Amino acid sequence: MSKATVILIPIGIAEDGYDSLPAYISEYINSCDIFFVENLRTARRAFKKLDRHFDIDAKEWHEIDKNEAALIPVFTKAMDASKTIGISSESGCPGIADPGQILVGLAQKNNIPVKPLVGPSSILLTLMASGLNGQSFSFNGYLPIHEADRAKKIKLLEAKSIKENSTQLFIETPYRNNQLFQSLLKNLGENTAVCIASQVTSKEEWIKTKTVMDWKKSNADIPKQPTLFAIGSL
Amino acid sequence: MSKATVILIPIGIAEDGYDSLPAYISEYINSCDIFFVENLRTARRAFKKLDRHFDIDAKEWHEIDKNEAALIPVFTKAMDASKTIGISSESGCPGIADPGQILVGLAQKNNIPVKPLVGPSSILLTLMASGLNGQSFSFNGYLPIHEADRAKKIKLLEAKSIKENSTQLFIETPYRNNQLFQSLLKNLGENTAVCIASQVTSKEEWIKTKTVMDWKKSNADIPKQPTLFAIGSL
Repeated sequence: MSKATVILIPIGIAEDGYDSLPAYISEYINSCDIFFVENLRTARRAFKKLDRHFDIDAKEWHEIDKNEAALIPVFTKAMDASKTIGISSESGCPGIADPGQILVGLAQKNNIPVKPLVGPSSILLTLMASGLNGQSFSFNGYLPIHEADRAKKIKLLEAKSIKENSTQLFIETPYRNNQLFQSLLKNLGENTAVCIASQVTSKEEWIKTKTVMDWKKSNADIPKQPTLFAIGSL
Repeated sequence: MSKATVILIPIGIAEDGYDSLPAYISEYINSCDIFFVENLRTARRAFKKLDRHFDIDAKEWHEIDKNEAALIPVFTKAMDASKTIGISSESGCPGIADPGQILVGLAQKNNIPVKPLVGPSSILLTLMASGLNGQSFSFNGYLPIHEADRAKKIKLLEAKSIKENSTQLFIETPYRNNQLFQSLLKNLGENTAVCIASQVTSKEEWIKTKTVMDWKKSNADIPKQPTLFAIGSL
């Protein structure tokens, strides 16, 4: 009996960024029997855009809701039935700062082959373009919301970055981008470099790294759009 | 006068993995006037494979040698002359566990736009397929070679992984894969999960995550091929 396989399917990050996806993704999509996706509408539209002949109705669909663990029984059934299973998140790479990891972990526990496909990750694209150290880096997710906690965390990440000579990446909810940016300018040393990467892969993409001293001179306003931040040494 | 631009160009990791590259890369390659590449032969062959009409002789080429900083004067000249500058490393994404970062940093310092293109990163593909935490992770480069130092570092990364609930990734020179693997089994706790990702993007790719306890039962032999390691919680 053939074995189940799990295919990890990246989706474009930006609406206008479809050219950043390798063509081989659509072959893999067509080979899947069943999909576990962060958002049904987004995934179906993305797959149809990659291959306009993609037959949505021929596939079985499950949405990864806030409670990914609730899908364990149906995912287990699909593995037992030797299905080719696709997992994708709403944008970027499943399991990286996005849902999918619990189901992938389940596949690993059951010794099912997992095939990750190449696609855009704003974390990786930011790091590449930042000019900051790419030999040693950490992604830290979201920083605390409360000012005092956030200031403490920013100073901790800066200390870590200096001690390990590493780049520290983190994200923020778009409408709080400017608040976080002001916290960074306030709490970091003048010579620490800050990279701001906004709307990565879109036509409006901009990725800039400056020292805190130089950012203070330039008065940047970060759009209320998906943005990544990185600190390190330039 | 138009401004210089820097394009970061990924190259396939595996010889047989060219289908993992997005088609848009070849348009960007053709738009470049001058290239800074880790290895001339690899880069030229890769670009020709992406577009067989690619005109090698129409471009200016510089090899990023062990001493990347030595290229600063010629890179600066290209920026001053408003050239479209391509940077690529031997496989994967430039600047991520690969050369290119010093030149990208120089572009950022000179306020030159940097455009990172999507391509394969064995770090990211490993993390996606590992089933380990992708909300918080660190890439640590190479571990120390000497047994005692390596054991200490392994225990340190395990402690960090548990304390931060993060995934810790690292690499090894292929011929030492099995030695490192044995060190991991010896020095990590029984319940720590170890992901081994070998020959990522090639036809021989395998990415497996098991607890130390389960790896001890399975007697794995890691091929002398490019391999990434990750530890965390499954």
